[in-house]
Amino acid sequence: MYATLSKKKATYIRQLALKKYRLERASFVLEGKKSIQALLASHYTIQCMVGTSSFFIENQNIFTGLSKNIEIFEVPKEILTQLGSLSTNHEVLAVATIPLPTEPCLSPLNITLALDNIRDPGNLGTIIRIADWYGIETILCSRSTVELYNPKVLQASMGSFVKIKLHYVDLPRYLQNVKLPIIGAMIEGDHLHDFSFPTQGVLVIGNESQGIHATIKQMFTHAIAIPRYGNAQSLNAAIATAVVCDNWKRTLQKS
Amino acid sequence: MYATLSKKKATYIRQLALKKYRLERASFVLEGKKSIQALLASHYTIQCMVGTSSFFIENQNIFTGLSKNIEIFEVPKEILTQLGSLSTNHEVLAVATIPLPTEPCLSPLNITLALDNIRDPGNLGTIIRIADWYGIETILCSRSTVELYNPKVLQASMGSFVKIKLHYVDLPRYLQNVKLPIIGAMIEGDHLHDFSFPTQGVLVIGNESQGIHATIKQMFTHAIAIPRYGNAQSLNAAIATAVVCDNWKRTLQKS
Repeated sequence: MYATLSKKKATYIRQLALKKYRLERASFVLEGKKSIQALLASHYTIQCMVGTSSFFIENQNIFTGLSKNIEIFEVPKEILTQLGSLSTNHEVLAVATIPLPTEPCLSPLNITLALDNIRDPGNLGTIIRIADWYGIETILCSRSTVELYNPKVLQASMGSFVKIKLHYVDLPRYLQNVKLPIIGAMIEGDHLHDFSFPTQGVLVIGNESQGIHATIKQMFTHAIAIPRYGNAQSLNAAIATAVVCDNWKRTLQKS
Repeated sequence: MYATLSKKKATYIRQLALKKYRLERASFVLEGKKSIQALLASHYTIQCMVGTSSFFIENQNIFTGLSKNIEIFEVPKEILTQLGSLSTNHEVLAVATIPLPTEPCLSPLNITLALDNIRDPGNLGTIIRIADWYGIETILCSRSTVELYNPKVLQASMGSFVKIKLHYVDLPRYLQNVKLPIIGAMIEGDHLHDFSFPTQGVLVIGNESQGIHATIKQMFTHAIAIPRYGNAQSLNAAIATAVVCDNWKRTLQKS
């Protein structure tokens, strides 16, 4: 039997749905068993976990050897749903600390993603999951890109966010000093299937409707386009990321 | 100056947010200028359009030569937002008729998609947009797949739904009588990059968490897997669809 949640603590958790409070308190909420398992295995500091009694009974193995600094609270299912953003979370949520920002360090032997003004939280989360699938370690985000700890970003990333180093930077300024090839995905680029990818570099993905900023376009060493066989005007930003990464990784494998 | 919207008509439109009323009245709501332009250029029957006066003034060109059977209503922005599902729609919506289902007719010279129990509306919409990008004409959906006229499906499809023939069928029974190669995307499949795609066939994409039904798996002529280079447990269903289609289309182009 774990502690019951005070009203004050419940308010604190509920307020973390808003970016303002997340930034002020350097804390965020993560929902769902699988994501929290990934969080427990990561470098993140967990402040507390809130779950239903049936969840704790059925998942005792997850909590063996947990640090004593993590408070655990037991609540009825209805309360749990009210605390978080997912109406489908009937199991558990965790409150964790947002780590201090660090300087990006681009791997010289891998692809780095650079996201220019990605606004849709689902897209950012999906791109993080794609990066994790393709073994990409670092994502650079323009400061206008949606915040990592937005609940919809975390949900779409399916726990992958703990494995990716994501940095918010002044993207044009940062890229200016990058010595690696900078490859932009855009409709006017060269045919993806005929392109010889370098062994490393930065892949720039642009905003869902406005594409990539003109200042960043000027820094491209190459621009590539995903070939279209039908009529759709564009592909979703996350879809474009995955298709280019698949092509890039295949080239590296064969070289 | 167009007609004002009666209370009764407003209620009728608002109720179409629910599947029950969509099916009962064989009608659906579509929001946003771009999607409605695609609708106007399609075989769909439009019953009425509701927009703000500023929208109608700025977009007169869209409505020249419109059939006189389409009623047009002018409403304030706040009313428009209340009528539809998108809080960001400040321009126009249309009510159109759901066409009667037809028998699927698989193109012998193209890829056909088969979706087994895709539940997330965003995923279905994105897959429709991908199909349109890759020139795929037909999508077969299991009856458990989310409904096409769900507002989130339509929104994610970005107007592409008018160009794709989408059929809800008893998927295992239907596939049993298909004479084309049936290719399943699954984690245990053969390496995608080494696979020789046939010139035509059906690509089966499974449910977001449960994958593909065992009965359907037995009908596969081939199973393929997207190579993983990192640690994510899986890729989103729409992402997987795009990556396989890109690989398939490239093979066809080169053969």
